[in-house]
Amino acid sequence: MYAVTIPEPGGPEALVWAEVPDPVPAPGEVLVEVAAAAVNRADLLQRQGFYDPPPGTSPYPGLEVSGRITALGEGTTGWEVGQEVCALLSGGGYAQQVAVPAGQLLPVPAGMDLVTAAALPEVAATVWSNVFMIAHLRPGETLLIHGGASGIGTMAIQLAKAIGARVIVTAGSPAKLERCRDLGADVLIDYHEQDFADEVLKATDGVGADVILDIIGAKYLGKNIAALAVGGRLAVIGLQGGVKGQLNLGALMAKRAAVTATTLRARPAGEKAAIVAAVREHVWPLLENGTIRPVVDRAIPLDQAAEAHRVVEASDHIGKVLLLA
Amino acid sequence: MYAVTIPEPGGPEALVWAEVPDPVPAPGEVLVEVAAAAVNRADLLQRQGFYDPPPGTSPYPGLEVSGRITALGEGTTGWEVGQEVCALLSGGGYAQQVAVPAGQLLPVPAGMDLVTAAALPEVAATVWSNVFMIAHLRPGETLLIHGGASGIGTMAIQLAKAIGARVIVTAGSPAKLERCRDLGADVLIDYHEQDFADEVLKATDGVGADVILDIIGAKYLGKNIAALAVGGRLAVIGLQGGVKGQLNLGALMAKRAAVTATTLRARPAGEKAAIVAAVREHVWPLLENGTIRPVVDRAIPLDQAAEAHRVVEASDHIGKVLLLA
Repeated sequence: MYAVTIPEPGGPEALVWAEVPDPVPAPGEVLVEVAAAAVNRADLLQRQGFYDPPPGTSPYPGLEVSGRITALGEGTTGWEVGQEVCALLSGGGYAQQVAVPAGQLLPVPAGMDLVTAAALPEVAATVWSNVFMIAHLRPGETLLIHGGASGIGTMAIQLAKAIGARVIVTAGSPAKLERCRDLGADVLIDYHEQDFADEVLKATDGVGADVILDIIGAKYLGKNIAALAVGGRLAVIGLQGGVKGQLNLGALMAKRAAVTATTLRARPAGEKAAIVAAVREHVWPLLENGTIRPVVDRAIPLDQAAEAHRVVEASDHIGKVLLLA
Repeated sequence: MYAVTIPEPGGPEALVWAEVPDPVPAPGEVLVEVAAAAVNRADLLQRQGFYDPPPGTSPYPGLEVSGRITALGEGTTGWEVGQEVCALLSGGGYAQQVAVPAGQLLPVPAGMDLVTAAALPEVAATVWSNVFMIAHLRPGETLLIHGGASGIGTMAIQLAKAIGARVIVTAGSPAKLERCRDLGADVLIDYHEQDFADEVLKATDGVGADVILDIIGAKYLGKNIAALAVGGRLAVIGLQGGVKGQLNLGALMAKRAAVTATTLRARPAGEKAAIVAAVREHVWPLLENGTIRPVVDRAIPLDQAAEAHRVVEASDHIGKVLLLA
């Protein structure tokens, strides 16, 4: 098969379309013929040499795909050759085929086309696990989402609104904020123009946000804690603004607040399967009845993955960028 | 009545035994004639002017007492004049009488003397709320307790062992560590002699502690995260080592870990009542059947509270220092 390989870390041009050995599904896995993959920021980091794949996983980038099952590994049950699926991966999605543990498969939601389904697994699993399983966002609470127009952000807005929470988003342009409003966001903050912590406090009568979904990390740590409500939970899922920040434990204590930081990719297969099962139970019905929908910015042929990375690096897109195999 | 007042913040001599107006129980409160109060580090901070009482609460120090109910506020139910109780307070325990919301009362455990019961409310509520309600320590997991010979520490050791967890403690002397071992601690670390993070990793085959109960704060933040297991929870309940520390969010993320910081005193009455109810349900039976017991270092007359503060400041005590009214 062909895959997007990274012979040497570097810029988008480091992605090289090359012939590689076909993957073979291990026991408990299935082989998927990829229809589409989706781009995640982690793929950009991996391309730059900053985010090596976990041991034992594919060396090619790509954390989610959609496609058709073409073979079952030994002892794999519950899935059949020919089924259309999407899947959460530990890597290897930028390829014509990928082997996936069965616990990380999801059916294509009823009514959705196969390509679009590639936009779902990573964002749905990341948002569900962080906002709901870890931070326990409840109806009536306020969620602050940094990067509301990202793939993660557009899913988080919709899921939070679906359960009856109030949603505040930050984004870097009026066009992105407009799109967040269309998806249901209640309060829009342009981080180039406004101090987000001030705006969150203004919008909540000084109370703050109950949950914050953060992709920035160190640079926002102090302001995120300033923007938290008493009993608030800060869920860090990205470190685009740096790794090491000053934590004021006195401020955290005064709010009885919690800071968590996770990545999905590093979780063992059992935890991934538990999250995927929860996503199928809680998120899939909302997709199938039309309450929420994935937001796709554009689709680019897989052998032009470098162009897709340039789009994501420029950050002018809204929602997910797909790669067509 | 008489109470320990703080006319001006300062050293132990700032505590002044003085006649003050009797407290009056508000609706939903009871009046308690104090038998004993217990000293907490928060009282030392309050004496120094660093920890003002929450608005609307007694200006005198003292976060826990035992005694007899002498009057009921309007509409107070479930308790009777003459009952022996202990109570979690927002302040005012260093006094001959104190008014307490009924939700913060606990019966004196069967078989325990009234004075000793003053050692229980704050430590039981702090340990239960942090280690079990927030950090969800589970049987078979490892708990690291900083300051294992403190009132909090001696209760945390016993409760964690009672539910089947493994316990690692730090303390500052061999005598304190010996006492921790007597209470059930499995691994002893002398923080003057050893690097606690190294020792925790050694004692857990490199896995780390699932839960850490920390009273140090900033100074230990980096090492605490180094000592955490994947999925670990750091519960900060004191800031003896400073307020602001560097948080490596990348390290937190690699461990999918959580940092929480809380104080009991600032919680609204409803949350205090919920914690007290949980303590009564889960901790009281273990006290009554002899599985766990409070550790009392000594008892000093209430009008000599300054001496009690000197003892606690010197940190040579083990367990709780009580004040006899």
